[in-house]
Amino acid sequence: MMQVIDIEWTDTEQQLAKSVFEKAYDREVKALIAQVHQKISQLNDVQDMWQLHDFLSIQRHTIDGKYDGRDSALLFVFAQLLQEGWVTMDELTGLSTDKIKKIGALTRM
Amino acid sequence: MMQVIDIEWTDTEQQLAKSVFEKAYDREVKALIAQVHQKISQLNDVQDMWQLHDFLSIQRHTIDGKYDGRDSALLFVFAQLLQEGWVTMDELTGLSTDKIKKIGALTRM
Repeated sequence: MMQVIDIEWTDTEQQLAKSVFEKAYDREVKALIAQVHQKISQLNDVQDMWQLHDFLSIQRHTIDGKYDGRDSALLFVFAQLLQEGWVTMDELTGLSTDKIKKIGALTRM
Repeated sequence: MMQVIDIEWTDTEQQLAKSVFEKAYDREVKALIAQVHQKISQLNDVQDMWQLHDFLSIQRHTIDGKYDGRDSALLFVFAQLLQEGWVTMDELTGLSTDKIKKIGALTRM
């Protein structure tokens, strides 16, 4: 089995991870805010309003859960962010080859 | 103690109550939708978005709880709607004098 949990992160890698994380978070949140503005332009009745509420409940839960900054979670989070398009492989330049390979393998799982 | 739970409602009174209820609900929801549009016009970051989510959670819970159509709850609900301005005393014309008095007493509690 691929070892992904107890992997070591250097200080430089942790800084890179943090910065990529923040960029991805900003992008995702900006896209979400645009979606909310879009939904509001079509918000006319109480059903629309509770649908917006449900939408926000789900998004908040998803985003809060996804951006887990613990070392043991980072490879999984990066794989997910790559799949979803919030991060590009280029932005991970600076991580060890081993980590890049593992992230790549996780995106194909 | 004022007896308010087991009070009898005639068919005519029930119809009136239903109609006043629906009008109050419509007014309250319309005001809420306007508030949401207002909040969205100032929604710029993730904090604003989660504040909107919290606001909607509270409003949904409050409104779902408030519009309790059971006979045993009606006097209390009308007293609350009067206090909040979603219903006027005039609109309750047609209820028995006894009920009007009880509703009035509840608004002063």
